[in-house]
This record gives sequence, C-alpha cells and structure tokens, in this order.
Amino acid sequence: MAIRIGILGYGNLGKGVEYAVAQNDDMCLKAVFTRRDPSTVKIITEGVPVYSVDDAQAHASEIDVLIICGGSANDLPVQTPEFVKYFNVVDSFDTHARIPEHFANVDKAAKESGKVGFISIGWDPGLFSLIRMYGNAVLPNGNDYTFWGKGVSQGHSDAIRRVKGVKNAKQYTIPVESALEKVRNGENPDLTTREKHTRECFVVPEEGADLAQIENDIKTMPNYFSDYDTTVHFITEEELMRDHSGIPHGGFVIRTGSTGKDNATNHVMEFSLKLDSNPEFTSSVLAAFARAAYKLNAEGVSGCRTIFDVAPAYLCKQTPDELRAHML
Amino acid sequence: MAIRIGILGYGNLGKGVEYAVAQNDDMCLKAVFTRRDPSTVKIITEGVPVYSVDDAQAHASEIDVLIICGGSANDLPVQTPEFVKYFNVVDSFDTHARIPEHFANVDKAAKESGKVGFISIGWDPGLFSLIRMYGNAVLPNGNDYTFWGKGVSQGHSDAIRRVKGVKNAKQYTIPVESALEKVRNGENPDLTTREKHTRECFVVPEEGADLAQIENDIKTMPNYFSDYDTTVHFITEEELMRDHSGIPHGGFVIRTGSTGKDNATNHVMEFSLKLDSNPEFTSSVLAAFARAAYKLNAEGVSGCRTIFDVAPAYLCKQTPDELRAHML
Repeated sequence: MAIRIGILGYGNLGKGVEYAVAQNDDMCLKAVFTRRDPSTVKIITEGVPVYSVDDAQAHASEIDVLIICGGSANDLPVQTPEFVKYFNVVDSFDTHARIPEHFANVDKAAKESGKVGFISIGWDPGLFSLIRMYGNAVLPNGNDYTFWGKGVSQGHSDAIRRVKGVKNAKQYTIPVESALEKVRNGENPDLTTREKHTRECFVVPEEGADLAQIENDIKTMPNYFSDYDTTVHFITEEELMRDHSGIPHGGFVIRTGSTGKDNATNHVMEFSLKLDSNPEFTSSVLAAFARAAYKLNAEGVSGCRTIFDVAPAYLCKQTPDELRAHML
Repeated sequence: MAIRIGILGYGNLGKGVEYAVAQNDDMCLKAVFTRRDPSTVKIITEGVPVYSVDDAQAHASEIDVLIICGGSANDLPVQTPEFVKYFNVVDSFDTHARIPEHFANVDKAAKESGKVGFISIGWDPGLFSLIRMYGNAVLPNGNDYTFWGKGVSQGHSDAIRRVKGVKNAKQYTIPVESALEKVRNGENPDLTTREKHTRECFVVPEEGADLAQIENDIKTMPNYFSDYDTTVHFITEEELMRDHSGIPHGGFVIRTGSTGKDNATNHVMEFSLKLDSNPEFTSSVLAAFARAAYKLNAEGVSGCRTIFDVAPAYLCKQTPDELRAHML
C-alpha cells in the first residue's frame, strides 16, 4: 500500500512535490490543499482532488503525510504547528535563526497529537547542514566553508525590482572560483563577504529610466549589494524571459581538517550541488523525508525531527537488508 | 565523564584512532590491545597501558567502546562477533560482498550481549555509501558514479611486489578526468573499467632484473591491471621512500538525476574526498561512530548497526539543541 501524500500550497514547490511523488512508486498523491478557490487550481495529476485548505482537517484520515509548501516568513511558522495536530508533516522552513523556536512549536504540537513533523528539509538547511555536521564529527580539528551558487536569489531579485525605474530583474549569486580553490587547497583562508561571492544582475529598465542611477542604487544597496562586487546588465523583457526564466541554484560545502602527528595530515571533504531547478530539487528532498515521517510514525514515534534526527535508511524505500547488500 | 575508548590492533589504523581520540575532548583512550608481545608495543599516549588481546575480556568494565582495527580478510570476520560479546565495538569491515554475512554474525552476538556493534565504518564503505544512499533517496530517477583516487591501492601494490624481479612497488589508482567531466555535465555515460581509472606504478627492480619483462608482467596481469591503461615507472628504493611513502587516497561519488515535467530538469550531486592519509581519515570516522555506539547503548539499544542505521546527531558531541541552533 502506497504512502498517501497530501500537498499544502500549490506554487513552484508544491508542483515540484507533485512531480517527485510521481517518481516514487511507493507513494501516491491523494489531495492538494490550496488557499485559493480550489476550482481555479488545475494540477497535473489526473483524478486527484484539489480542496480548500479550510477543509484539510476533514481529509486527515485519507493522508499519511502532508507536505507543507508555504513560505518561511509568514506561512510555515503558523501552518506547520497547526497541521501537525492532524497530519504527519514535512516543511522546508529555512529561516536559520528561527529554527529553534519553530522546532519547539512543532515539537509541542506533534507530541500532543502523536504525529511526526519534519522541519527545515531541503538542501540549505538540509543536505548542506548534514554534510557540515558529518564534516565536523569526523574532522573536529578543521574549518567549514559554504558557498552558494551559481543560482538565482529570489530575495535579491525582489530587492532590485523595488529600485526606482526597474521593471523586472533577476539576480545571480556566484561563488568566487579563486576563493573556492584556496579552500580546496587547504589554505584555510579567512574570507570576507566580498571575497566569497559576486552578484550579477539582469535588469529590465522602465522606458526612459536613468540607467546610471539604477546601477548606482543597486550597487550601493546596504545588506543586499554594498558588500559585494556587483555587475549590472540592462536587457529587454524578452531577453529576460528567454535567457533567465529558470530558477537554478546550487553551491559547495567544504570541510578541511587535519589529523595525526602534529596535526600535519590534511584532508578535504567537499559536497556540491548543481541544480537546474531549486524548487524541484527541494521538493525531491521533501518527498524522501515524507517517507521517513511515515515510517517513523508507523513505529510509534511522535514529535519534531530535523535532518539530523533520523537514520538515513528511513529515507529509502528499500529494506535495511537490501541497502546493506546493494548500497553499502 | 569522557567516553572510554579501547583500541584493538595497533597498526596504521590503530595509531590513527589514537590521534583521533586525542582530538575529541569527550573521549579518552583507556587501553590498547595487541596480538604482539605488549612489552614490544610503544604507543604515543603517555600513561595508557598496552595489554595482550588475550586479556581484553578482563578489562571490559574499563572500556565503553572498543575500536577494532584489524584487516577485513581474516581478522574482522572473527574479531568483531567475538568482542561484541563483551564490548560495544566499531569496525571498518570493507569486503562489500560479505557485509550481509558479517552483519548477521555481529547482530546475533550483539543482541545476545546487549551491546552495539557498528560495522563497515569509514569512507567506502562508509561516507561514500551514505552519499550514494541520500542521492538515490532524493533523486530516484538517476545514475550513480563512484571514482576512486588519486590514491594508493595496497592490494595492487602487493600484487606488483609478487612479480618476478620486483623488489618494492607502489601503485596509484587515478580517476580519468575526462570521464569525471562527462558525468558532471550530466551526460550519463556508460563507462568501461578502462574509461574510469588509470593505474600508475612506481617499481623498484632487483639488481639486473629484466625491466621489459616486469613491465609486461604487470600490464598483462589479469584482474589487477589488464583491464586498465597502466604506466610503469622504474625508480630507486631511495626515490620510493622519498616520494611515495604516504598513503593518500580519496575519490568522488556523483549522483545525477532528473525531475519535473518530462524529466527535463537535471541535477548533479557530488561528494569528494582528498585525503593525505587513508588510514588516519578512516580512523577519524571510526572515532565519531564510537561516540554513536556509546550513546545508542546508553539508551538501551543493542545489535549491529551500519552508517545507514543511526541518526546523524549521534555522531556529534553537541546536543541536538546545539546542533539545530548552530549547524542546521
């Protein structure tokens, strides 16, 4: 019997989960819940109903795991503790500083309801956190480095769109190759913000806008751009749609450390992701953790969990015997 | 109170564990057990006793986790099921094909004794297995690639030393860069053995040996070299000692996969290790899993475990709260 998945929120992430579930033959999509008028939401999978989020609780018995695809700023802090009262849930909460608070809220509600709630699942937080953790456990005498990109930063793209005279924009975060090389060579550099990443902006100006002013406003914007070497390209709306409509991302986690006599033996652990679609990959991670939530809850476990708190085998559809025989 | 570690077997791996334990301030080395005459074994840590392996059982109450540093061919299949009768244990059993059998033996003994036995800990099997597993769970529609090196293969070096006229030798396994690039580019190539790795041999010939014969004997050796592009360099014993006395290793695990509409969105996950010392890095992984064995057993768990079967947080000395606040 397949694991019955519900999706809450049908944006890029929700659509990605729908595709991910279709790739896992031990899962099936049972319902999509939306805050919009359900009659206006057309999903890909045939024969699967779309319900109003207000009716979710009434369908709790039909769903094994609800994957919550809302935003971290406003949606998830409310939705995840609320829906874990009725469902095993998985979310991708990514506001690093507020994870302890979110964990506490979800844990309390999940323990009361007897459900499992996985939070902060994805790649950062998520797989990148995991690699940092293994790196620190294995090489306690060492240094951590995380680089992001090349990829689209939604927050920075939004910030550019708020600049006077800007019609549309896309921003790429790009790791500095020479900094990456220094880290890989075990030089253990202290890197400033400017030395780690550059920012590249593709901007569609409004008709007659002051291009020099736009470029200056972007490059001097505090928090977002002023600490970086930023380049600004002006392009047409057609060029933006044609060349920059994707949402690629990725990055690098590197742990360098030393062992042995006089700590003279050096090691480099590196993990990298190159993703054509940030939301589709994140969705694929969420789907794997839905399987883990289902299995844990079936064993009687309840409470909040993160990627640190589940044995890896729970993510797989294979049995532990099969994993040992074929993947170890 | 620090986790009390014992080391069984004081070769390269055992020495590496000794250094690794010294880097972890929540662990302390309590004893080394050896099959040699203990009076002939001089260890690095002052004040720590060396005992005969025959007396190990008598010291069981002084040790929380025994790290077994024997070889996979003959030692571990006997030692791990035997010593898990008295100790929580960790080993680095790396004969992939015999893992299910070894697991069953250790699991049976560990369940009877109430101890935890971690097997096949290190980097392959070990961290590489883990990355393969996460990659398969997250991207079920994809391909796995593992490359090893650049690094020293002990088995191949030994094979060369058995060739007539060879006094000493060291063999490096080297991944083929162009094959790596094809994989990273998402070309999903079918790679033959020859296309994935080359083999480079540094050979010290005996006085008056037939060099052409040696080179031919190596390059045509079945299983070890005949399926590879192999280069042979003749050097002096002094050059071998000066330039090839290390035991570096490493490698690459790459998972490529596709998601979304028509599976048209591509992703690449890559993990790599560059290790100046294969045994010292393996030892560092063993030490982290000793911590996990200790914590699991303190919770009342018993039986055999692999890297797939323990939540990552158990490897760390930080509490789950600290991990969530600082590493997620």
